[in-house]
Amino acid sequence: MTLPDPPQAILTEPITDPTAWLAAELPVPEGVVHELTPAHLDEITALTKALRTEPLPLLADREPWRALARRTMPGLSELAHSTAHRTETHIGTAVLRGLPVADLAPDEIRGLYRALGAVMGTAVSQNTRGEYIADVRDYGNGGLDNSAVRGHQTTSALRFHSDDGDLALLLCVRPAADGGTSLIASAMTIYNELLRRAPHLLGLYYNGFVYENRDEEDPPAYRNAVFGYYHGQLTCRYFLRDYVDSSPAVTQVPVSDLERHALDLFEALAARPGAATEYALRAGDLQLVNNNIVVHSRRSFSDGAEGGGRLLLRQWVNLDGGRQFPTTLCRHRYGMRKKPDARD
Amino acid sequence: MTLPDPPQAILTEPITDPTAWLAAELPVPEGVVHELTPAHLDEITALTKALRTEPLPLLADREPWRALARRTMPGLSELAHSTAHRTETHIGTAVLRGLPVADLAPDEIRGLYRALGAVMGTAVSQNTRGEYIADVRDYGNGGLDNSAVRGHQTTSALRFHSDDGDLALLLCVRPAADGGTSLIASAMTIYNELLRRAPHLLGLYYNGFVYENRDEEDPPAYRNAVFGYYHGQLTCRYFLRDYVDSSPAVTQVPVSDLERHALDLFEALAARPGAATEYALRAGDLQLVNNNIVVHSRRSFSDGAEGGGRLLLRQWVNLDGGRQFPTTLCRHRYGMRKKPDARD
Repeated sequence: MTLPDPPQAILTEPITDPTAWLAAELPVPEGVVHELTPAHLDEITALTKALRTEPLPLLADREPWRALARRTMPGLSELAHSTAHRTETHIGTAVLRGLPVADLAPDEIRGLYRALGAVMGTAVSQNTRGEYIADVRDYGNGGLDNSAVRGHQTTSALRFHSDDGDLALLLCVRPAADGGTSLIASAMTIYNELLRRAPHLLGLYYNGFVYENRDEEDPPAYRNAVFGYYHGQLTCRYFLRDYVDSSPAVTQVPVSDLERHALDLFEALAARPGAATEYALRAGDLQLVNNNIVVHSRRSFSDGAEGGGRLLLRQWVNLDGGRQFPTTLCRHRYGMRKKPDARD
Repeated sequence: MTLPDPPQAILTEPITDPTAWLAAELPVPEGVVHELTPAHLDEITALTKALRTEPLPLLADREPWRALARRTMPGLSELAHSTAHRTETHIGTAVLRGLPVADLAPDEIRGLYRALGAVMGTAVSQNTRGEYIADVRDYGNGGLDNSAVRGHQTTSALRFHSDDGDLALLLCVRPAADGGTSLIASAMTIYNELLRRAPHLLGLYYNGFVYENRDEEDPPAYRNAVFGYYHGQLTCRYFLRDYVDSSPAVTQVPVSDLERHALDLFEALAARPGAATEYALRAGDLQLVNNNIVVHSRRSFSDGAEGGGRLLLRQWVNLDGGRQFPTTLCRHRYGMRKKPDARD
């Protein structure tokens, strides 16, 4: 009689490559910053001029956007592509600084942003309307205690979490009047700490937690593994804890004390002094967050009386030749299914 | 900043006391057998005579049953009490052999059985009708693929499992024409093997699995931990796997591959050669199964054309001064809640 084989191996050695880092080891809070040059700005002008003569819908496929970017912005496209793909083996995050958001009209900003995303990888839909670009701002509908609300629609502090694509691209159009700073921590470092401090709980993270599926698609709840190990590579996806807390309304089974502990421990390891880097995004910063490697959070913010309020644009992008990982992670890696009856 | 404390410790050392055993180490397949003596049989005659003059309902409280047993069967009561409580620190099972079931009327058998249970501990209700004694026989309603059916109502092989009380008392009134043998394995030995072979999965067993709540009471599904560690003592409760497999109908969340693996591994460790003892109960055998320490199963059976078919009676009994264990295990330890509208 043979014993059954596990569906996947569990990594029992710590990660020792650059993807496992502490904030104190970063040269700057952003980790990596690439300031745009005057030549890059000239390329952006060429792009916006081309878009005026040959308009391209934001919902068009990737390929025409990528071709347009490569043609009008060869230098910036090269920088964007290499920066994006380097996050996979480096520290999992970087910032492109100095996009001229103050000098561009709203639709020009979105066009530039869609073009840069198309260079980096394949954008995926973030909702049932099939949209590639979501506004991260105060929607005025309150906080995450409301099951109809998603994190990017609030002013609340967001817990550490991952997004669905390999990369989250966050473009700061307007910072908040107060608060809203970004925090990023290496999930690989968190794994190393879990391996050292709570090795017997690792199976819980590989099995994952049940999340309410908010405003998106069937089924009403789903399981997501926090860690998966595939072909010698560890991958993380840690979705917003609030969706676990609200899942019993669907499953009729309470979240257990041990599950709560595992979630608390993960977040405490992300938030402990020295683990996460924290900084304010500036207008014109394009932040790259590799969801396979890091988790991110933000402080709560408040908008001033003037200026329209904090606005980030968000894309989820899968890298070309991106890693494979177990299907237990991230059912929405390839986007939310567009529903026929959803409004565009 | 301090990290959160776990809700309970995880045992990281193997169990080395007599509760962790292999079948080959048992002197006889039953582990411990106490044959009733002629003096015990005379005591049983005294009990049945007393019941004819002072009838006592099976649903009466424990105390009058215990008093009657102690008065009419002092020797057998002492043996039953000591045998039951020794299972806690010994191998978790024993058999009292030679109850005169062939010489007693059906209600006398149930009276004797209720009396012996009352000596050993506090019987708990096994269903929403508040019954202390359940018939384990073919109810003719088919197998466990039907969510309205419970294991004791079928002729199927039952997987390794635990029952709800500290002790399951199984009285064999009539064996099957063919099959139906009992298997018992030490859950403490299974734990030792899991600790050695799959230490990173232990958290899954401490967190437990979600079970459909069949035909019993609210809620429609609940989580049960397989192992719990409390005040230096490990306790197991492994409920019928079939109820996990059918739980997604309630929770709308599939059982994960890793959960299936953890269940498969537990059962494979119970069933592997040399782990479980197997033997046939004889008419008049009273089998004690300590659910804190062992798991049990049975082969499928078929009844012959004559004789009324296999009949075991089952009680669930909590020991006096029984162990404490985490509330994550065994929500029905103190019985199924009687529903006002259920028929007695």
